[in-house]
Amino acid sequence: MQTLHVDLAERSYPIYIGSAVLGSKEIFSKHIHGTQVAIVSNQTVAPLYLKALQSALEGYSLATVILPDGEAYKNWETLQLIFDGLLDARFDRKSTLIALGGGVIGDMAGFAAACYQRGINFIQVPTTLLSQVDSSVGGKTGINHPLGKNMIGAFYQPMAVLIDIDTLATLPRRELCAGLAEVIKYGLICDQQFLGWLEVNIEKILALDPSFVTEAVEKSCAAKARVVALDERESGLREILNLGHTFGHAIETHMGYGVWLHGEAVAAGTVMALEMSRRLGFIGAEVRDRGIRLLQRAELPVVPPAEMRAEHFMEHMAVDKKVQAGRVRFVLLRQLGDAVVVGEYPEKILHDTLVADYRAIVRQL
Amino acid sequence: MQTLHVDLAERSYPIYIGSAVLGSKEIFSKHIHGTQVAIVSNQTVAPLYLKALQSALEGYSLATVILPDGEAYKNWETLQLIFDGLLDARFDRKSTLIALGGGVIGDMAGFAAACYQRGINFIQVPTTLLSQVDSSVGGKTGINHPLGKNMIGAFYQPMAVLIDIDTLATLPRRELCAGLAEVIKYGLICDQQFLGWLEVNIEKILALDPSFVTEAVEKSCAAKARVVALDERESGLREILNLGHTFGHAIETHMGYGVWLHGEAVAAGTVMALEMSRRLGFIGAEVRDRGIRLLQRAELPVVPPAEMRAEHFMEHMAVDKKVQAGRVRFVLLRQLGDAVVVGEYPEKILHDTLVADYRAIVRQL
Repeated sequence: MQTLHVDLAERSYPIYIGSAVLGSKEIFSKHIHGTQVAIVSNQTVAPLYLKALQSALEGYSLATVILPDGEAYKNWETLQLIFDGLLDARFDRKSTLIALGGGVIGDMAGFAAACYQRGINFIQVPTTLLSQVDSSVGGKTGINHPLGKNMIGAFYQPMAVLIDIDTLATLPRRELCAGLAEVIKYGLICDQQFLGWLEVNIEKILALDPSFVTEAVEKSCAAKARVVALDERESGLREILNLGHTFGHAIETHMGYGVWLHGEAVAAGTVMALEMSRRLGFIGAEVRDRGIRLLQRAELPVVPPAEMRAEHFMEHMAVDKKVQAGRVRFVLLRQLGDAVVVGEYPEKILHDTLVADYRAIVRQL
Repeated sequence: MQTLHVDLAERSYPIYIGSAVLGSKEIFSKHIHGTQVAIVSNQTVAPLYLKALQSALEGYSLATVILPDGEAYKNWETLQLIFDGLLDARFDRKSTLIALGGGVIGDMAGFAAACYQRGINFIQVPTTLLSQVDSSVGGKTGINHPLGKNMIGAFYQPMAVLIDIDTLATLPRRELCAGLAEVIKYGLICDQQFLGWLEVNIEKILALDPSFVTEAVEKSCAAKARVVALDERESGLREILNLGHTFGHAIETHMGYGVWLHGEAVAAGTVMALEMSRRLGFIGAEVRDRGIRLLQRAELPVVPPAEMRAEHFMEHMAVDKKVQAGRVRFVLLRQLGDAVVVGEYPEKILHDTLVADYRAIVRQL
């Protein structure tokens, strides 16, 4: 097991990464302060891992809230089920909430923990690769609004994150691949050496070789923790974590939540961000193409949906959280391993990026 | 105009108190950073003060959300109207939200500001005495849940609080009196000298003499700011601000939100807390009676509703936020001007407090 520390002054917390972490009584008892513990999971994950978690929590007063599975349920109505469960069990403000599941569960349970009685203890047990390397680290929580993704939420840090890589054995391959989009992102934005390591080992990760999976998760969490430690509330630097996300969110919104997985939309969005970086003269075609090839080897889409026109992107991006005073800002690569947020650019470059022939780019690789 | 500072490190902010503060362009421009400003008010307050506020905000891109008036609307459905308004106007994370109204508006708008895009700037313009001396200071925001008051919320500090005492001229006298319950509370829990001043001048405040109102508001806010500065997230000391509130919330819940005003329920709850303090031997009957007489002069109820039995109180108090591991904790007076949170007490003392003959106590004054 490896232990990483996210350094956020009095809100600092450890991330435990390894096999069988889920069943570790010692780790839980270290981070649970009261006697009341609520587990929030979903209908897919609970049958697989709830029992093991409950065994590790023997002796606590336990409540369990099982939500329907999917981004479509990341809304207020479902969040309300968590509050109902906590209030029905008469849980007080010293209680602890544990999220057992992927990013949707982590985001919703975290937001519920942030809001319940104005904030209770919170522990993340992410069970998908995407949530292990991304959403469980950094304290972003929230729900969707009909007019935009993650529009309602809070910055709320957990007491600890427990990443049990054994849970990836039951993860559908499509979701494993989607998680790799964020892993590859860390290499692109801030760790050239890690990108090189991924280019050598991506197939071993896909085959779930434990030491390679642990290494990939550890390096990803470490990259994210470094960035978050410098900018907890996303007032600047942290935005670089959103490489590909502005285009990606537009794809998710346009296609309907859940039609493209988040990581799939980010993968195609990352290619668009690389192309925009190239058109601005920041990087050459060879850097863009290294990104495309690695995403392809991770079985990810590298072109936006055929049906999406420039105006669709513009419309959806107008409500992106990175918009400032009406102008859409993009995370771009200044060079490999060095990302930057750009709000000043010729409109023509953006337009050309939106209408570029990505199929042709990919064909010529 | 007087200016107070709430000292919370990087979340510190000023409170401006005086006449015509509502129309001060200079104060607003000092605390608004972006160009987009949303005003949240209600159907009662907006016709009275919205125009003046809008004039002070000339030049900004303005959106206005008018909510129905009353505690009954302090729920998710109404909160959603604020999010809808912000998203319809495409307001970004640099926008500012201004709450113009009483405690319900301040709590809801503050919670909306805390959650919208994970947090936007927030300014309080409280227009009732209760919100001026209590809810607008200290960063507590939130909404009610069918199973409990203020169960869903956040600690979220404003950029500034603008208290225009002129707005009290249009406040119904019953609400003015309700606000005085909290003013008197500050004297009881932490400022004996202020209590003495109130005993001399309470009628001048009720008559809205500007200098006495300003003094009462300033002293109340200063008392609250001192306590909040020492314990922002209510992990200890801050709980003393809830003198009378555990009993009071039970009264509010039992009678139905809005039947008794919050301050009225707190007034009766304060008498119960004084009586419990006396039964524990902390204070003598003469301190209890000073509290009762001052609350009476402020035209406030000093006995609980005749229909409430001990078991009603016990049932409603079981979901109070001050419950820890199943035990209800009470804010009591150790002596005049010195409050303490008590979790260990003989059950009989609590029971006797709940069934005490408050009518008889009041009759003999």
